[in-house]
Amino acid sequence: MRVGILTGGGDCPGLNAVIRAAVLAGTQRHGMEFVGFLDGWRGVLEGDTVPLDEAAVRPLLTTGGTILGSSRTNPLADGVEEGVARVRERLGALGVDALLVIGGEDTLGVATALHAAGVPVVGAPKTIDDDLSATDATFGFDTAVQTAVDACDRLATTGASHHRVMIVEVMGRHAGWIALHTGMAAGAHVTLLPEEAVDLDAVAGTVRAVLARGGAPLVVVSEGADVHGGPAGEDAPRDAFGHVRLRGAGEALEQELLARVPGVSTRVTVLGHLLRGGTPSAADRILATRFGLSAVEALASGDLGTMASLHGVEVSQVPLSEATGVLRTVPGARRAETAGIRW
Amino acid sequence: MRVGILTGGGDCPGLNAVIRAAVLAGTQRHGMEFVGFLDGWRGVLEGDTVPLDEAAVRPLLTTGGTILGSSRTNPLADGVEEGVARVRERLGALGVDALLVIGGEDTLGVATALHAAGVPVVGAPKTIDDDLSATDATFGFDTAVQTAVDACDRLATTGASHHRVMIVEVMGRHAGWIALHTGMAAGAHVTLLPEEAVDLDAVAGTVRAVLARGGAPLVVVSEGADVHGGPAGEDAPRDAFGHVRLRGAGEALEQELLARVPGVSTRVTVLGHLLRGGTPSAADRILATRFGLSAVEALASGDLGTMASLHGVEVSQVPLSEATGVLRTVPGARRAETAGIRW
Amino acid sequence: MRVGILTGGGDCPGLNAVIRAAVLAGTQRHGMEFVGFLDGWRGVLEGDTVPLDEAAVRPLLTTGGTILGSSRTNPLADGVEEGVARVRERLGALGVDALLVIGGEDTLGVATALHAAGVPVVGAPKTIDDDLSATDATFGFDTAVQTAVDACDRLATTGASHHRVMIVEVMGRHAGWIALHTGMAAGAHVTLLPEEAVDLDAVAGTVRAVLARGGAPLVVVSEGADVHGGPAGEDAPRDAFGHVRLRGAGEALEQELLARVPGVSTRVTVLGHLLRGGTPSAADRILATRFGLSAVEALASGDLGTMASLHGVEVSQVPLSEATGVLRTVPGARRAETAGIRW
Amino acid sequence: MRVGILTGGGDCPGLNAVIRAAVLAGTQRHGMEFVGFLDGWRGVLEGDTVPLDEAAVRPLLTTGGTILGSSRTNPLADGVEEGVARVRERLGALGVDALLVIGGEDTLGVATALHAAGVPVVGAPKTIDDDLSATDATFGFDTAVQTAVDACDRLATTGASHHRVMIVEVMGRHAGWIALHTGMAAGAHVTLLPEEAVDLDAVAGTVRAVLARGGAPLVVVSEGADVHGGPAGEDAPRDAFGHVRLRGAGEALEQELLARVPGVSTRVTVLGHLLRGGTPSAADRILATRFGLSAVEALASGDLGTMASLHGVEVSQVPLSEATGVLRTVPGARRAETAGIRW
Repeated sequence: MRVGILTGGGDCPGLNAVIRAAVLAGTQRHGMEFVGFLDGWRGVLEGDTVPLDEAAVRPLLTTGGTILGSSRTNPLADGVEEGVARVRERLGALGVDALLVIGGEDTLGVATALHAAGVPVVGAPKTIDDDLSATDATFGFDTAVQTAVDACDRLATTGASHHRVMIVEVMGRHAGWIALHTGMAAGAHVTLLPEEAVDLDAVAGTVRAVLARGGAPLVVVSEGADVHGGPAGEDAPRDAFGHVRLRGAGEALEQELLARVPGVSTRVTVLGHLLRGGTPSAADRILATRFGLSAVEALASGDLGTMASLHGVEVSQVPLSEATGVLRTVPGARRAETAGIRW
Repeated sequence: MRVGILTGGGDCPGLNAVIRAAVLAGTQRHGMEFVGFLDGWRGVLEGDTVPLDEAAVRPLLTTGGTILGSSRTNPLADGVEEGVARVRERLGALGVDALLVIGGEDTLGVATALHAAGVPVVGAPKTIDDDLSATDATFGFDTAVQTAVDACDRLATTGASHHRVMIVEVMGRHAGWIALHTGMAAGAHVTLLPEEAVDLDAVAGTVRAVLARGGAPLVVVSEGADVHGGPAGEDAPRDAFGHVRLRGAGEALEQELLARVPGVSTRVTVLGHLLRGGTPSAADRILATRFGLSAVEALASGDLGTMASLHGVEVSQVPLSEATGVLRTVPGARRAETAGIRW
Repeated sequence: MRVGILTGGGDCPGLNAVIRAAVLAGTQRHGMEFVGFLDGWRGVLEGDTVPLDEAAVRPLLTTGGTILGSSRTNPLADGVEEGVARVRERLGALGVDALLVIGGEDTLGVATALHAAGVPVVGAPKTIDDDLSATDATFGFDTAVQTAVDACDRLATTGASHHRVMIVEVMGRHAGWIALHTGMAAGAHVTLLPEEAVDLDAVAGTVRAVLARGGAPLVVVSEGADVHGGPAGEDAPRDAFGHVRLRGAGEALEQELLARVPGVSTRVTVLGHLLRGGTPSAADRILATRFGLSAVEALASGDLGTMASLHGVEVSQVPLSEATGVLRTVPGARRAETAGIRW
Repeated sequence: MRVGILTGGGDCPGLNAVIRAAVLAGTQRHGMEFVGFLDGWRGVLEGDTVPLDEAAVRPLLTTGGTILGSSRTNPLADGVEEGVARVRERLGALGVDALLVIGGEDTLGVATALHAAGVPVVGAPKTIDDDLSATDATFGFDTAVQTAVDACDRLATTGASHHRVMIVEVMGRHAGWIALHTGMAAGAHVTLLPEEAVDLDAVAGTVRAVLARGGAPLVVVSEGADVHGGPAGEDAPRDAFGHVRLRGAGEALEQELLARVPGVSTRVTVLGHLLRGGTPSAADRILATRFGLSAVEALASGDLGTMASLHGVEVSQVPLSEATGVLRTVPGARRAETAGIRW
């Protein structure tokens, strides 16, 4: 069996570990051959490939990102039927019998459509935001949170030296898992998620209270948290081209705090893409490796249209269709665990 | 309610985070007062305590080990009935109404006996080895594995420069979880667990194969793996006092490899207590915090004789008696995931 | 002798290590007593102090920032003579015989004036930017560069996965040492310093060349590098209050690159205060400790009006006046070392 | 010009960074061609080479160890004259015009002999122990110390939890720089160097004093420190083959402490090769890069028989003969800086 592998969407630590595990196990246990498509679906459509043998993948465990590259190319953009046909034709031309697709909602959505059309496909979920409902965890998330917490640990000491409010903006447009975990692990005094209405006066109150007891308030805010005071008006900041300049959540929050806590000193750090890169944590290397192994066994045993997934301590395959269902956001019960505690 | 907290057994990263979360939540949400017993049950028996208020615990999130100290003192050593009576009397004398006990099998075993005798007690599980059957994970384990993997990453490059076999011995007397995860995350070519018979000739074969392809074999071995060639004979190494010198698993394995792979160069690193110490990882801070919060809610709601536990992504309380049951060792299915793969 | 210690200006890793070493050595070797002034010169003017004994300073070696707090209060703001008199009076009232002043140009400038007026004072230099001419190195700089390089290592892999230009802005308003060292250690393809005119077309050319060979351009830019295309015009971005929004060097560079390399994908990360905080590196702990020891010996031996300083591998005291002379910027010879190399 | 590069002796972080800088600068600036000899002088004698072009070296900045491998093969072992003749013949056969030799005393000693015989050669110094007298610092040392200090930081917390003496053995057979710096940066209560007679009773006294004030003694000991109580007697521990088992300095010290401080609990950690491996620190990447650049410029300008060296903040070339002179050990003045301080 000749298997094509691709990685789609935003990158995250662990993608290469999935590729490595899949290629080593597939080659050795099942005599599979592997080829890598470059830049996600673009590589499929354009037949842009690299060979993936054991020697090529062995050094990849610690390498961040994806050696295959990634893109947001959607082969179904011009219609599902035409797209599927085109992919199928490309695979045939390249002699590729089956696909291992590593990606998030969009990428796996395409995989689901291909499976429905009879293309042999298995998947491995990838989202830095850990917001897929079909698995307890996705690789990359642990690394992202650890990186954010390391940054917060550093920022906390400079905040304390200057009695400053340190605001840290982390990724998470629709789900607040990174912010929730970063906030808990960094001992943030305030953590703002996309899942909750933000009470700016309460935030200001907490900031004042921490300052009053001699502390330095640490505020972790999801990029998707609604901290803005309404839509951009005529005097909204604009860039050099006249477009409204969208301030991020961190900067917006800073403005709101400055308005509410006179004389306060603040600093905003936007961690952004820092959370996507670098060597995966031990936990992410393990999860990614197990996902790669599981996906390849599914290919070998004909358990197609499925995706690797973690439940408790077990990795197993679940239908791909489950992966592209509802977003796993931070539930109320989880927020209630820490609600109201003055850290 | 006046709550006494104690930590027992070997220390691990996250103990202080449990204490911090419990004291802050208990004080603020339930008006509890907290007192810390020093050095586990010793502090109870001798009435050796420190006050634990909000200011005392706030800085503890990142501090490794336990500020309360630990010991292996067993209050039931001279008989359960007398021991329980003595503890109860001590608690009464100190005005302590309930106990939050953080520890492993031994410590929680005492807690179970106290609960059976009517002492209000809740627990939080602690074992660096992650081998309790009543929870998916215990704090400290993630940090230990990450520390071991960081060490392996370093050792791998010096091994490669000198075509050397690097042998890394990690903790795990009865359960191989640290070795299994370290081996997977570090890309070890051989991983030896206490749960499996060791085929030394097969290990030597793998070592030769990796050397033959220009690689540097990385071998991770649990301290409890049976790599010894039988009981100590008359010519066993002895220390200055004439006692048989027990070589660790790493050194024993080195001898076996040297005997089987002529001319091979080896180096053994025993990570030992390095894995117990230091700032907890983000994941361990979160798990420890959640355990502390859960335990305190159990105390507040009268859900006594229970222990915080993780299942999937949920933290809840399970009966203490479950914690001291069978050891959670690495099951065959888990070992089969990676069996035979030439990394 | 009763010695007052203060830390002034922006904080950096290692301040606490200076305090710890000075207090331990001064107390034990010379029978000195120590008191800490809070928030730099503010604490002196307002008599806001904390006692500093051995037990208080022992745990400080790994603690980032300064437990004494810092501020930019200048006691000479209303005139040197009045300021000096006021400080002298305060010290007398508090029974403080001598000062150990840890700070940058401004703080040490005040110390120089006090010394000239006969106040017993010694100093230790502090600047994250490593731009004092009187010493080969200042503590905090090594930690800052390592933190920046760790960030770059992470960003490089996500850049590579997406064929993106990663722009990293680091501190350094007048001297480019942080950028120079970060760029060298991170393997940046372009490094922009305040000391050099920026040729934006050349930068764009390098970016295109790296992309052309399949790489992901990494650009490190000093906050003080002149990458702006002239003064803010009428359509410059403005904040909510109508003030011109000063874009940082990273964002400005991004705009210039987008204009010069059509279709390029870019991401800007502003490391900012991340570089000031956190546990000092081993090298910074050592340098800070040696500075603290040297300063205290100077106090004991009457070598007043001097500052600890590193030359080669030797720490010695140099006149305070030298510290506040010309800025140590990156010299042409140093820039020439790497000029033109296509990394 | 066709330049051969080799790395000799024990590996250390930064070797690859030297190679990378030399190849990029030499190729681009001077049109040199490069070839790598595998495993030090062995590769020269056996003509075992790999091509080194820009693409091959670009990814090497963060890679620990040496991609060229290393060995302790000495081409002059059978006589200097014959050895030099043989090397010269090999270089001629391979069309290699000049050598860039990266190594310690032994390797550079060979280079010195080759230079004396007219072979065009330049060097870069390498020693993890930082004990060459001709340079203020060598790359690899900073990484080694940071790794040791990270380990000590971890061990200190577990020591404190159990009131234990933590003994940490670090590299340094003849010079105690790693121990001195590790001890200072980790806040060790006792640091034992090869350069000083060890007063075991004084060590025991310090250990008792730290325990008495509630602390956990941290002891850093150089592998070369003389902590042994005399030569091995008849009852010395022996290995399975009957050879005297040489205990390391850490284990020997533990025995001495156990004999002097009754009831004390101790743990020994031997860091060993952990200090040689892994990604170089930012400072080491910079030093190694500068050494590589300097060596290549020396080759280009005909400044032969020289070695890259750091003095203060300047890198320049010094005669190779200086490098193989007296060992740079920790001088008395440096030990006096901290002598007697109770950390």
